[in-house]
Amino acid sequence: MILTLTTDFGLTDHYVGTMKGVILGICPKARIVDITHGVTPYEIGEGGYTIAQAWRYFPKKTVHVVVVDPGVGSARRPILVEAAGQFFVGPDNGVFSMIYGATKCKVRHVTNERYFLRDVSRTFHGRDIFAPVAAHLAAGVPANSIGKLVRDHVKAEFVKPQPAGKGRWNARVLKVDHFGNVITNILASEFPDLATRRFRLNAGTAGVSTLARSYSEAAPGSMFLIAGSSGYFEISCNQGNASEAAGVRPGVEIHLQLE
Amino acid sequence: MILTLTTDFGLTDHYVGTMKGVILGICPKARIVDITHGVTPYEIGEGGYTIAQAWRYFPKKTVHVVVVDPGVGSARRPILVEAAGQFFVGPDNGVFSMIYGATKCKVRHVTNERYFLRDVSRTFHGRDIFAPVAAHLAAGVPANSIGKLVRDHVKAEFVKPQPAGKGRWNARVLKVDHFGNVITNILASEFPDLATRRFRLNAGTAGVSTLARSYSEAAPGSMFLIAGSSGYFEISCNQGNASEAAGVRPGVEIHLQLE
Amino acid sequence: MILTLTTDFGLTDHYVGTMKGVILGICPKARIVDITHGVTPYEIGEGGYTIAQAWRYFPKKTVHVVVVDPGVGSARRPILVEAAGQFFVGPDNGVFSMIYGATKCKVRHVTNERYFLRDVSRTFHGRDIFAPVAAHLAAGVPANSIGKLVRDHVKAEFVKPQPAGKGRWNARVLKVDHFGNVITNILASEFPDLATRRFRLNAGTAGVSTLARSYSEAAPGSMFLIAGSSGYFEISCNQGNASEAAGVRPGVEIHLQLE
Repeated sequence: MILTLTTDFGLTDHYVGTMKGVILGICPKARIVDITHGVTPYEIGEGGYTIAQAWRYFPKKTVHVVVVDPGVGSARRPILVEAAGQFFVGPDNGVFSMIYGATKCKVRHVTNERYFLRDVSRTFHGRDIFAPVAAHLAAGVPANSIGKLVRDHVKAEFVKPQPAGKGRWNARVLKVDHFGNVITNILASEFPDLATRRFRLNAGTAGVSTLARSYSEAAPGSMFLIAGSSGYFEISCNQGNASEAAGVRPGVEIHLQLE
Repeated sequence: MILTLTTDFGLTDHYVGTMKGVILGICPKARIVDITHGVTPYEIGEGGYTIAQAWRYFPKKTVHVVVVDPGVGSARRPILVEAAGQFFVGPDNGVFSMIYGATKCKVRHVTNERYFLRDVSRTFHGRDIFAPVAAHLAAGVPANSIGKLVRDHVKAEFVKPQPAGKGRWNARVLKVDHFGNVITNILASEFPDLATRRFRLNAGTAGVSTLARSYSEAAPGSMFLIAGSSGYFEISCNQGNASEAAGVRPGVEIHLQLE
Repeated sequence: MILTLTTDFGLTDHYVGTMKGVILGICPKARIVDITHGVTPYEIGEGGYTIAQAWRYFPKKTVHVVVVDPGVGSARRPILVEAAGQFFVGPDNGVFSMIYGATKCKVRHVTNERYFLRDVSRTFHGRDIFAPVAAHLAAGVPANSIGKLVRDHVKAEFVKPQPAGKGRWNARVLKVDHFGNVITNILASEFPDLATRRFRLNAGTAGVSTLARSYSEAAPGSMFLIAGSSGYFEISCNQGNASEAAGVRPGVEIHLQLE
């Protein structure tokens, strides 16, 4: 049974290792895969984008744990999502919104404390709730014994640009990748017009109005838009770091104007 | 068999991967879990704190390898610790002191070279001694064939504050976590007075005299003490980075004054 | 079956996790080991050095995937190398040159698309070609069904210093390690003269003319050459960071003059 982890915990503390101890104590055969622990702290959109990019490459029955959880300790619910034969465990804060948009989902409120650690802290639900529930699922506990179906789970706005007047959209930075590329929430397939019409994308201090089909098309140092391997438009800088050049980070709003 | 790794090797070199090759060559069924490789270089107290936080969440028979080893190549002994049905392998430099304090331990001097790699370098005992010994243990070699029991193993002072006069203690920073919280070696359960009496904790450039029960109690930007999920008091800064604000790093001495 | 990964992808994106999903979907029993994902982006010499240091510590039949691939999307070939009973999968850009130099190798051009993902992107051959081919090998597909033998694979110059006149060599920085040591491509065993003759190694802003046998020999803050655990000479700075002091990074040329 494969169990993946996506968090904003970083790699310098004992937190991730501790979660793995809990998982292997419950499900000794679990194959644990780190997607990343480098999500920008508290950036739900970045966590949601990351798991949405990765999950399709995993086999059925994989259990994905996602902990980007600024509301830990508050009333936000822990949930279990079933989608395309895979499972997702995490907080009900919208982090699974891109999964909801991609395929049919069943969402359950995780309530059966039998599958939690005995003592649940106020600050570390990754260890005390999400990891053990996921491990029990991987070990064969049926989803319907975890909690009841709900329909009012949180759907977040980061999944796509919001209309803001004629030809205008308020879009968003989902992620800055290892190379400084700025991944937006503008799906290339939903905005085919950018290939044929004039546009301007304002992101931080940068204004981008060029679409490139490959990196080699663009002049060194210039910033341009390109459809990335993710399916989303990315702001790139040939031989440079687009994120630093524009001064943007995950979660910031950016503005698209189509002429 | 689960085998965990805690080191200060970082993740950009081949060192950790090489240790895993050695382990899997000896014990192909080992499930290797990284606790962290981001311990501040040579900070024995931070390594000791990290494994002390994590080990309780692992099942019996887990073998923990800890390599924070400024004395590699010197006369310091390699040791094997048995505690509560788990095993710990590493240098005898005090890094297991918090385990010694937490439960009954048997400590052995690791001497049986049959379980080392054939050629032992002067600089990489993680690969040549600790990893192979741990792998042989995980593969079923009994502890008593690794080496003889000793009683004079090193117990370090970082485990708790040292008295320094009336109402005064010299304490210590154990760890700075991913969010900049400064974890001290002051156990909340051993210093209950901080909840009822005036105190001042001087750490770097900061003087902290407020105890908070939750983050929301504190004003944004203010520094305060809080009992963390670790059981130790942590210096936190609401919406800020306490470590940077105070200018402290793991290993530095801090001073507690109770009035 | 053990399968290792060495890349320049970093750990903050979903890329590595996605590759692992592909691998486990094809070969559920694969034991995946990260060597590192922290190779300096596009530094083929650093990636080549890293895998060359690690592979000998893995058991026979291990499959090593190395993705440091500035030419992805161009005509460079994917290759499979068989050496000493182990396998190496990656781009034909010289990244395996140190393996070629160390032992007898058979090199194949990877052409059998049956072992690729169905849709091969132009930018992510790690996921679409290298990971699935490696997983099929680990699952038992014979090497000769992957592609035909070639002899014109790329051998890179980074493997050793190039002569540049009487007593002069143009050498190279292979790697800067976690502690700032500058690992050169000058093998101690091939340059024994440095122990007995005067020399000068110019690296960035530094000129090094001292050889030390151990760190304790050198004055604090001084820079010196030392034969590292890798077998190569390293530029070190006692209690300091040699890479920062000299202003060098992986890939830069350095100059050795023997008197």
